[in-house]
Amino acid sequence: MTSRRELANAIRALSMDAVQKANSGHPGAPMGMADIAEVLWNDFMSHNPTNPSWSNRDRFVLSNGHGSMLIYSLLHLTGYALPIEELKQFRQLHSKTAGHPEYGYAPGVETTTGPLGQGITNAVGMAIAEKALAAQFNRDGHEIVNHKTYTFLGDGCLMEGISHEACSLAGTLGLGNLIAFWDDNGISIDGHVDGWFTDNTPMRFEAYGWHVVADVDGHDPVAVSNAIKAAHAVTDKPSMICCKTIIGFGSPNKAGSHACHGAALGQAEVDLTKEALGWKYGAFEVPAEVYAGWDAKAKGTAAEKAWDAKFAAYQAAHPELASEFTRRMAGDLPANWAADADAFVAAVNAEAKTTATRLSSLAAIEGFANLLPEIFGGSADLGCSNMTEWKGHRPMRANKPDANYINYGVREFGMSAMMNGLALHGGVIPFGATFLMFSEYARNALRMASLMKIRSIFVYTHDSIGLGEDGPTHQPVEQTATLRLIPGIQVWRPCDAVETTISWKAAIERQNGPSILVFSRQNLPHMPRTQAQIDAISRGAYVLVDTDGQPDAIIIATGSEVELAVKAAAQLKTAGKNIRVVSMPSTNIFDAQDAAYRESVLPACVTKRVAVEAGVTDGWWKYVGTNGKIVGLDRFGESAPAGDLFKEFGFTVENVVKHVEAVL
Amino acid sequence: MTSRRELANAIRALSMDAVQKANSGHPGAPMGMADIAEVLWNDFMSHNPTNPSWSNRDRFVLSNGHGSMLIYSLLHLTGYALPIEELKQFRQLHSKTAGHPEYGYAPGVETTTGPLGQGITNAVGMAIAEKALAAQFNRDGHEIVNHKTYTFLGDGCLMEGISHEACSLAGTLGLGNLIAFWDDNGISIDGHVDGWFTDNTPMRFEAYGWHVVADVDGHDPVAVSNAIKAAHAVTDKPSMICCKTIIGFGSPNKAGSHACHGAALGQAEVDLTKEALGWKYGAFEVPAEVYAGWDAKAKGTAAEKAWDAKFAAYQAAHPELASEFTRRMAGDLPANWAADADAFVAAVNAEAKTTATRLSSLAAIEGFANLLPEIFGGSADLGCSNMTEWKGHRPMRANKPDANYINYGVREFGMSAMMNGLALHGGVIPFGATFLMFSEYARNALRMASLMKIRSIFVYTHDSIGLGEDGPTHQPVEQTATLRLIPGIQVWRPCDAVETTISWKAAIERQNGPSILVFSRQNLPHMPRTQAQIDAISRGAYVLVDTDGQPDAIIIATGSEVELAVKAAAQLKTAGKNIRVVSMPSTNIFDAQDAAYRESVLPACVTKRVAVEAGVTDGWWKYVGTNGKIVGLDRFGESAPAGDLFKEFGFTVENVVKHVEAVL
Repeated sequence: MTSRRELANAIRALSMDAVQKANSGHPGAPMGMADIAEVLWNDFMSHNPTNPSWSNRDRFVLSNGHGSMLIYSLLHLTGYALPIEELKQFRQLHSKTAGHPEYGYAPGVETTTGPLGQGITNAVGMAIAEKALAAQFNRDGHEIVNHKTYTFLGDGCLMEGISHEACSLAGTLGLGNLIAFWDDNGISIDGHVDGWFTDNTPMRFEAYGWHVVADVDGHDPVAVSNAIKAAHAVTDKPSMICCKTIIGFGSPNKAGSHACHGAALGQAEVDLTKEALGWKYGAFEVPAEVYAGWDAKAKGTAAEKAWDAKFAAYQAAHPELASEFTRRMAGDLPANWAADADAFVAAVNAEAKTTATRLSSLAAIEGFANLLPEIFGGSADLGCSNMTEWKGHRPMRANKPDANYINYGVREFGMSAMMNGLALHGGVIPFGATFLMFSEYARNALRMASLMKIRSIFVYTHDSIGLGEDGPTHQPVEQTATLRLIPGIQVWRPCDAVETTISWKAAIERQNGPSILVFSRQNLPHMPRTQAQIDAISRGAYVLVDTDGQPDAIIIATGSEVELAVKAAAQLKTAGKNIRVVSMPSTNIFDAQDAAYRESVLPACVTKRVAVEAGVTDGWWKYVGTNGKIVGLDRFGESAPAGDLFKEFGFTVENVVKHVEAVL
Repeated sequence: MTSRRELANAIRALSMDAVQKANSGHPGAPMGMADIAEVLWNDFMSHNPTNPSWSNRDRFVLSNGHGSMLIYSLLHLTGYALPIEELKQFRQLHSKTAGHPEYGYAPGVETTTGPLGQGITNAVGMAIAEKALAAQFNRDGHEIVNHKTYTFLGDGCLMEGISHEACSLAGTLGLGNLIAFWDDNGISIDGHVDGWFTDNTPMRFEAYGWHVVADVDGHDPVAVSNAIKAAHAVTDKPSMICCKTIIGFGSPNKAGSHACHGAALGQAEVDLTKEALGWKYGAFEVPAEVYAGWDAKAKGTAAEKAWDAKFAAYQAAHPELASEFTRRMAGDLPANWAADADAFVAAVNAEAKTTATRLSSLAAIEGFANLLPEIFGGSADLGCSNMTEWKGHRPMRANKPDANYINYGVREFGMSAMMNGLALHGGVIPFGATFLMFSEYARNALRMASLMKIRSIFVYTHDSIGLGEDGPTHQPVEQTATLRLIPGIQVWRPCDAVETTISWKAAIERQNGPSILVFSRQNLPHMPRTQAQIDAISRGAYVLVDTDGQPDAIIIATGSEVELAVKAAAQLKTAGKNIRVVSMPSTNIFDAQDAAYRESVLPACVTKRVAVEAGVTDGWWKYVGTNGKIVGLDRFGESAPAGDLFKEFGFTVENVVKHVEAVL
């Protein structure tokens, strides 16, 4: 029988070979964590290589994603559809083995990692999802949700602030289903960490309320195994297993040094390392007995079958719950969704309310959460400002797992990456809220959601200078514009309750990407619309006020400035000018419409255009063209009541009229 | 004599009155921390209200900036030029008393705070500056740099990830000159924090290597005083004083509840509170004896005078050091700077090197750091990738304070906000580096630097898909575009060593705002230029290749794409087309040029324009106009060698030629 070390060496050899062939990558971490991974994957992980989407699989997150060859090796060796040819194409165009593990590329990669600290945070989100779903769906004698989330992380993840946010909350929530492994190798890119990272990490995690297993020899399978067993025994706290390892383990000249962190070892050193490890095989060569030692297909299939049997019994006892579980894990909306959602939109339209869109948003949550128990909300300590605490919200506590809401605390980045973990786990549709300004604290998690094409819904209130007295530190003048630039994102800035409701509907229906919903603190009036106009909102922009015949000019506006545009058009009409008003709640969605629709809203022949938005202007030249004008704000705001600020910065009907007259 | 409690009550009363008059603001924190502030400011803080810029003053940072009425009250009461009329104008347009403390508005506000966690991080930066300057300038018998940084912070700051980054590093660096006060009131906006924040904070800070004074009664002046004395006694560790307080102390119906966190108490409750506190005065009324108890003008003037005498002795003994200290604290460049810098630019131009701009950046640092000992560098664990470790760099360690460099560790946001603290302290010009992608982790600190108009220099390497194999998580396709949208920012994306050197020169010379320098991983060729062209680089955009007579079209390019533009123009020339090439390393700076210069570079009559940049396109419509075209990238990248990616995504001479032909 192949020794454990020999099995682990397969990871080391494949990692060295792939990085060497690509002449790019990070061999040190896979070589250092190979023994830990071998024990975890061969003795503990419950997963099925023949079905990477089995709902009750254990999740594995490589938070130190630069060590991607570790996970690619594991997936290949255990039998996922990741053939050796793909490993030979490591880091090459259109391969499944991207430089960092990319969700949706190689089967078995649960989340995209690389930006440090976000993997462990995704893992916390996954563990929250499991805890909530177990409470919602398990019944006496029927544990259909019962799995763990394992995550590997390095010093880099632990230095990142987001690890504090995520691990602090994981401790508070008592996530006993979460087990983390710290690759304590004392090395980061700049060298030995003792000059810049001297935390007592076990003490830090004890301060968070974690179960800490300190001083584990990460190269001793028995020690690792015992540590995992100890972690399994503690079910009311997350576990941190602190593994002392040697980066680049096995390399005679580079082990224990940052020389093997982020570069190929060089063929000579690869050869020397293989010799030192007693690995007698050529590049990308793994002997059959080693493959046999790793193969998890039969075990995984059996595990899933056993679960299938349990699920069949559950289905028999609780048919409605079972079908709901299946629907929610598939990410599908209920059959009656479209009709119910449209009816809700119609009701909101009929109400014709003048209100802050953050309040319209609360009403939309209220309405849609009644239809969708998978809505899983939260706020970064601003629930009653963001208006996220709908009547049916049930905040999670350590001892109250049956929840659909998280009090994330003042942890915007952590919240956002946890939401991504929730979305990736499945079974829930996460939304999370903060002030629009503090989207900046979370920025890269929004990007990651878009890169992964997952349904995270980011809710941002206190839009623009309309926020008022809190002043420029809290007034987002450039944030909406910058968020629109994330590839694949859909940003909404609705002008009233109807657009708000449609934006929520669109975000919920968007199964292949995140949405960003931007809401006002202040009241905005209801805009009357025909049914055709209501239907057109979901196209991102539409004609809200039209003219008879060709317009003399078009005013394009979003959010709180739509009212100004409508009033300016009315005033200009009395002066005999035909002004079309286009409401453009989502530039991203409008840009994706077909050319004919775009032309119908913004006809090329009407070159006299004015855009109005209380924010930076650069993005609007695309729509107003060379002859256009923009009423915007290319400076920071000030602290004052909102009404004073709108006047001070020219967001008045008079000023919009003046700009339209200037283009006419 | 006025009692300590009575003195503290002046803060409470002013805070309640100002928030009540504005009907907006946060009374709870000032009321809760008033007793602590009273002890610190009256018994320990060394500062001079008549000269807020005295270089050796103690720094005070209100990290929980929403409690702004605390600092406004302190500044008013101790005698800064902040009259009671300003307090009556709290949160009104053009007052000095903005909703959050804004640097440059009220005298004595050392940094803008509000975005949580950044204040404590600025404070760490200030303490680093003090430690470095003390080591650089103090001589035996002459301690001219010898002051402390005090900071107040709340639960929100402690939940934010950036507090982990900053406090972890502060512990590692042994910043004994930093003393923090935790306002442990158990309340955040969502209510009692025990549902979302259960850290053992003293243990957490012990894990960072701090000196922790636990369980201090924040309403007992003796306990607070003893805690500060204990903190002063420990000079090799930062101190965290954990103060139990009652939010809204004194309010009969709202103390201890989040009802007083972020809203006016209501006049009835203000009256009840004043009665409960025994404060018998009207709104904004402070009796003379209370003012007398607070007045710090005489003591502060004496303290500064004593320092002046010490400095005179220092000047006599070390005249050169003294004049250098004075120059550096004023933020001035040396007299010979202009000539020396120009000579360095000329030398770089003469070398005509083809190299990665990150390497040109290292050469620029090397060149300019020789002229400017105040250059204070660092990197977030990517020194040898960002190319920031110049020959003269001296990393700070706990026992090696004589430093001009920080190994910030993997802490991008922390680094950036510490840099802001360094810049605010003065005496140094901070730069800090990471990959361009991870500007996203630090985003709000860049904004804060721009809002505060301070000279932080953010260095970002591994620009665009040119980064190659690390893949889409690391390939910044939208970051440069989004950074350009921060009001007041100056973003540079240079195309070769000469533009790189000029960008560094501009960033150093910019005394009223931050700069962002974006550099390539890959080699970029030297562009030959006349002296006039070299001079024009600092205007943000200039004609790099011109035509005889009016151009048929203009290609605008930045950074790595300038080479493509130049080659495309040359190819089109052979086909008889006159194509101008405009290199636009800084759109922000170009936009700020006078109309005549802008017209000379981009004449209105030439409407056939193509922009080329390996990033998202929206921002370029402003320059190419309705008839223009853009060769850009409105999607995420892929993991592959850079050359393959540029081809895959159309960044080829052929494709640029094709686009120019399409507009012609």
